[in-house]
Amino acid sequence: VAKLRYARVEHVGPDGAEARIVVAAPQAQRWVDVRAAERLRLERGGATPRAARTLSEALVPGSLALALERGAEFLEVAQRAAADVDGDALAPPDARLLRPIDPTAYRDFMAFEEHFVNASRRLGRTPADVLYMLPVSYFGNAHAIVGPEDEIPWPHYTESMDYELELGIVIARPGRDLTPETALDHVLGLVNFNDFSARDIQALEMTAGLGPSKGKHFGSAVGPWITTLDALDADDLAMTARVNGETWSQGSTSTLLWSIAELVAWASAGEPLAAGTLLGSGTVGGGCGLELGRALQAGDVVELEIEGLGVLRNRLGTPASGGWRPQPRTRIGSTD
Amino acid sequence: VAKLRYARVEHVGPDGAEARIVVAAPQAQRWVDVRAAERLRLERGGATPRAARTLSEALVPGSLALALERGAEFLEVAQRAAADVDGDALAPPDARLLRPIDPTAYRDFMAFEEHFVNASRRLGRTPADVLYMLPVSYFGNAHAIVGPEDEIPWPHYTESMDYELELGIVIARPGRDLTPETALDHVLGLVNFNDFSARDIQALEMTAGLGPSKGKHFGSAVGPWITTLDALDADDLAMTARVNGETWSQGSTSTLLWSIAELVAWASAGEPLAAGTLLGSGTVGGGCGLELGRALQAGDVVELEIEGLGVLRNRLGTPASGGWRPQPRTRIGSTD
Repeated sequence: VAKLRYARVEHVGPDGAEARIVVAAPQAQRWVDVRAAERLRLERGGATPRAARTLSEALVPGSLALALERGAEFLEVAQRAAADVDGDALAPPDARLLRPIDPTAYRDFMAFEEHFVNASRRLGRTPADVLYMLPVSYFGNAHAIVGPEDEIPWPHYTESMDYELELGIVIARPGRDLTPETALDHVLGLVNFNDFSARDIQALEMTAGLGPSKGKHFGSAVGPWITTLDALDADDLAMTARVNGETWSQGSTSTLLWSIAELVAWASAGEPLAAGTLLGSGTVGGGCGLELGRALQAGDVVELEIEGLGVLRNRLGTPASGGWRPQPRTRIGSTD
Repeated sequence: VAKLRYARVEHVGPDGAEARIVVAAPQAQRWVDVRAAERLRLERGGATPRAARTLSEALVPGSLALALERGAEFLEVAQRAAADVDGDALAPPDARLLRPIDPTAYRDFMAFEEHFVNASRRLGRTPADVLYMLPVSYFGNAHAIVGPEDEIPWPHYTESMDYELELGIVIARPGRDLTPETALDHVLGLVNFNDFSARDIQALEMTAGLGPSKGKHFGSAVGPWITTLDALDADDLAMTARVNGETWSQGSTSTLLWSIAELVAWASAGEPLAAGTLLGSGTVGGGCGLELGRALQAGDVVELEIEGLGVLRNRLGTPASGGWRPQPRTRIGSTD
């Protein structure tokens, strides 16, 4: 089996909660704990329980980003775990799913033409020429990425919350200056990605020309699992977003202006693309409240469902109160 | 001693090159290898050489970002190493300095008014109001940060290279929703930061509204060491940039529109600020070729020198040839 789903589950032990990487074949009913499966395999090969525990822990950390840094060695262990299921290595059926990737870097593109045409129209503009010349992107706060069922915090500096229906791309192998022909060899798989956005501060900040910042970094969600590319028809996946059970957005990966291979290649052009990077496609056409003239309310439940990638569900929290804001400054030479 | 300089040096051993964290009091002539000092201290306390090696390696990894995740425990070990210098723990005098921080996140502000006024004037604009309302910033590629004496790659997609004279701020303790009153407790210290920039592609990309991207991520430089805040008069540090020995830029941290405490607090507003984060101040007024009407040439040597932070020197490489570029697309409904 090369076709796999990757996820992470929480295990609470004597030293507190820890993350465990789990895998499953696309149609499997249960998750296999990769470290446990490798430990049992090593024991069958004659390793002492203590040595098997040490080796399996070194090879299969709780972080998927760190695990991917181990290269082919880790990917082979994961495939073996899914193919040769040992009952003792199954994750508990009620285990809580964590964000499947704890990214070492996070970069978001704007690769769906219908979205940037719609968004520009609302601002009374036409899209910039550069959006047709190359896939434009910005980096976000990788430490702010949350997982399935996590509550999305509502920061104190916004009154306008939105979701964004995006395709997430998880990088397995590092690279630099890749081409579209080689780029897909660096991809682990795809995942639902909800780039929650605070529209009021986003619009304000973007007038400075440095892109979105506080409007994006408070918490974007990924999950519930990563499906490897070879298990998907990545060029034509149906994309859906529901708010409180009502379908708000529908689209398809077939409307991407740039292919996944082109996005990955350009992400690596002239700069390092790290193992464990999460790339966002940008919002699919009609894939956010901004385009629909609708906004989220506190407590709303947003579900994203891309074909083959499960359902990512998150509830929006209540607005934070208090919180520090900078004191405005006066301009040089101003008489204010 | 609380006042310290932190750096990292390269050590080549039987398993290849590895990074070692070193520290020194502000006026000390030699660097102390923190892991070696801790190992020797443990041995003096009766630990076996093997146990002392295991414990010191766990507490003092080669990554400063990872070391900072160990919290006060690591900072105390580092201070002890600098205060109680054991001759056997000194780093070789000719050891090569690496980038002092291998950041887990990198975020750049635009906090010097004179710079954004000058840059706006060159574009025939006045600065956006938001630049006086809050410290605006964007995230960059943390994996692209290089160190002292490293050659700066010249990407294939640019013909216009520039430097930027910036103050770097290194975060020791993680936080979220800090205030200016608490923010400085989260700062390890300050460092020279050169945000090398590719002006042609930067200008092109920024027309999309998502900020700089390829114009920035190919390689920014930090170093040669980090000086702790308590050893500096951070509010009035002279800043200088030289190109091939000629002074191009002079400024001072006293012209910051927002204090270091305000920058750190706002960086953490509503989002996680990770240990090991590198914050850039943005360019000081007159601190780049763009403001001076000058550009860098292949092979140019750029030196940054902020008072108390040493000299950061980097040579610019030669333009890369080849390299993939995206094929432009036609607009929806276009008849091209």
